[in-house]
Amino acid sequence: MRTQVAIVGAGPAGLLLSHLLRREGVDSILVEAQSRQYCEQRIRAGVLEQGTVDTINEAGLGARMQREGLVHHGIELLFGRNRHRIDMTGLTGGRAITIYGQHEVVRDLIDAADAHGHHMFFEASGVSLHGLAGDAQRDRPEVRFMHQGVEQRIECDYIAGCDGFHGVSRNSIPASVLRTYERVYPFAWLGILAEAAPNAAELVYAHHERGFALYSMRSPSITRLYLQCAPDEDLSQWSDDRIWSELKTRFENDGGWQPAEGAILQKGVTPMRSFVAEPMQYGRLFLAGDAAHIVPPTGAKGMNLAVADVRVLSQALAARYRDGCTDLLDAYSSTCLERVWRAEHFSWFMTNMLHPSADDTPFVNRLKMSELNYVTTSEAAARSLAENYVGLPFAA
Amino acid sequence: MRTQVAIVGAGPAGLLLSHLLRREGVDSILVEAQSRQYCEQRIRAGVLEQGTVDTINEAGLGARMQREGLVHHGIELLFGRNRHRIDMTGLTGGRAITIYGQHEVVRDLIDAADAHGHHMFFEASGVSLHGLAGDAQRDRPEVRFMHQGVEQRIECDYIAGCDGFHGVSRNSIPASVLRTYERVYPFAWLGILAEAAPNAAELVYAHHERGFALYSMRSPSITRLYLQCAPDEDLSQWSDDRIWSELKTRFENDGGWQPAEGAILQKGVTPMRSFVAEPMQYGRLFLAGDAAHIVPPTGAKGMNLAVADVRVLSQALAARYRDGCTDLLDAYSSTCLERVWRAEHFSWFMTNMLHPSADDTPFVNRLKMSELNYVTTSEAAARSLAENYVGLPFAA
Repeated sequence: MRTQVAIVGAGPAGLLLSHLLRREGVDSILVEAQSRQYCEQRIRAGVLEQGTVDTINEAGLGARMQREGLVHHGIELLFGRNRHRIDMTGLTGGRAITIYGQHEVVRDLIDAADAHGHHMFFEASGVSLHGLAGDAQRDRPEVRFMHQGVEQRIECDYIAGCDGFHGVSRNSIPASVLRTYERVYPFAWLGILAEAAPNAAELVYAHHERGFALYSMRSPSITRLYLQCAPDEDLSQWSDDRIWSELKTRFENDGGWQPAEGAILQKGVTPMRSFVAEPMQYGRLFLAGDAAHIVPPTGAKGMNLAVADVRVLSQALAARYRDGCTDLLDAYSSTCLERVWRAEHFSWFMTNMLHPSADDTPFVNRLKMSELNYVTTSEAAARSLAENYVGLPFAA
Repeated sequence: MRTQVAIVGAGPAGLLLSHLLRREGVDSILVEAQSRQYCEQRIRAGVLEQGTVDTINEAGLGARMQREGLVHHGIELLFGRNRHRIDMTGLTGGRAITIYGQHEVVRDLIDAADAHGHHMFFEASGVSLHGLAGDAQRDRPEVRFMHQGVEQRIECDYIAGCDGFHGVSRNSIPASVLRTYERVYPFAWLGILAEAAPNAAELVYAHHERGFALYSMRSPSITRLYLQCAPDEDLSQWSDDRIWSELKTRFENDGGWQPAEGAILQKGVTPMRSFVAEPMQYGRLFLAGDAAHIVPPTGAKGMNLAVADVRVLSQALAARYRDGCTDLLDAYSSTCLERVWRAEHFSWFMTNMLHPSADDTPFVNRLKMSELNYVTTSEAAARSLAENYVGLPFAA
């Protein structure tokens, strides 16, 4: 089998890349280790930056997102029993976020890929990458895997590694070539999906001495809530009653608002990690999304960075096939890493400010309270938070 | 001896307080352990916030500062061999800083105190504070000390503890009453005064992999320069040549600018510490300035916080004597601490961003570079830095 770009991974990065390339007249084939159903149901992020929404709409893939997505113009920070609103739209000249689950994005992208006859292999096992580093004359890139009992080989010009943190792509790069940067946080998030109509208009980020809590929503009937917990938290110790009781405590406020309760549909623990691999390119292999970088979820940046990466990559590959010019491809890693490090810093900042930690000295606790007071009283500080949250504009 | 307010310490806080109280018709006596000459020659901070300048001018004490002070409308951040200007005045609606040494401020305040016949005791030894906590009926506050071989006692209504971090005032408060917050940084500043006319118009804060450096000035003929060093740095290892060589390395930039050299008049090592004691009041004793809080010098906030404290304290004492109302006095600690913690956070932020540290992981190093890029490219982030640097406005 032969294509121009082999894409490994059918998450938002890989799927969107295949669409963006098609629109530029570039062929691709997509290979995914999991089943289609698994990809469509995997609950992950749910906050889309303005630029992510724009990218999906520009690619003609936004019809259902426009109907069902919830557009939010602000977020709330709750601390010291008071709710403080950050008017993101007012502070950023009209930008907003859209609440629309990652699995919904994936469903839309897979449906559209079907409609366009994209070549996709789900449930591919033993995926391996070859011929990455050699020059194109004697050592062509190749993706090999087993599919329905048959060995498959895809010869290609380039491979896009969109297969996440644990995928084969980054691990196919010699360790000596990669520098990695990492922070593992001493806490995690216990997340639930609840059958409860949201009774707050926007996301509520709560800093409480017992730990962080986040109120969010997935749809007009489903609430998504998180509680800071230990990285090795034992879910069996968390009855539904205990979860609601703890949520009520952490969201306590003088206005008397409490999150609406409902049947808990799902519970899980999300670890918190910051990770960056540099560079994001090795020969003919380009990493995108979680394969290259992880952010803690506090800044809601994970999927948005993946979209930003493949936006840059699709434009670079389009230029390569259109003009034969590899300047954009050569700049791919440095172009992406500038945004990646901005998002890493913002995610670290939000995570640190909002999470009390056993590691914190009393001095650091006080700094966090001062920072919370500052971002909710200084317009400049609020604008800085807002412009990062809705997402900085793409380069031209 | 009897007065309304006994002031311990003849630094900027204590001296300015005595002037502000006089203007409100409140009597005070000032007691200082050091000699007058020592106070006037002690080289310390040199950056005055807009609000500090305004306060000194409003008190009629600004004539020489207005003649000799250097008004700066921006600062520069130098990293990655490039100089980036933060246009403080443009970003803050017209506010600026004034470069005027703390010892010059002290000289002006002492001269004016002489002119007004303020009662001041220099070289007071064995200063001790009494009757702080008791109610005023049976246990009056008193300051005792030896002066020129004679034991002196000042009976008063209130004591202002303006005697710095190592002074007797804070240590006169029972430890059980105070909460303290502290961070000692794993680096210090090696500072020099050089006989060299400044050849940069504004302060230059340099982040270099070998360590932070700061270019500043004291007058049209004197440069003040700093190099990040170890807390226990051995000054004998730093010849003048080595200092200039290291400064040139850390200030390297593509524009080719180098700090002008000149005879080194003074060398010293400044430790870096963050410290806050809460509350800033104990009975009839009110702490102000370094007696209550220390900031690392990177944010140029030390003297400015002292001025802000005594501004609040003078207004509170004036209200007490004018109307008999102690509401402002009762609120003194919480009023001051809001600004103190903002300054603590800003000073910590500037210090962390600009100083590489042996404690930093590679991840943290990259965050710092992202933060430097961000504050020099985002208007919101630059405005946030600028509004803190020039000083947030005083409450009405």
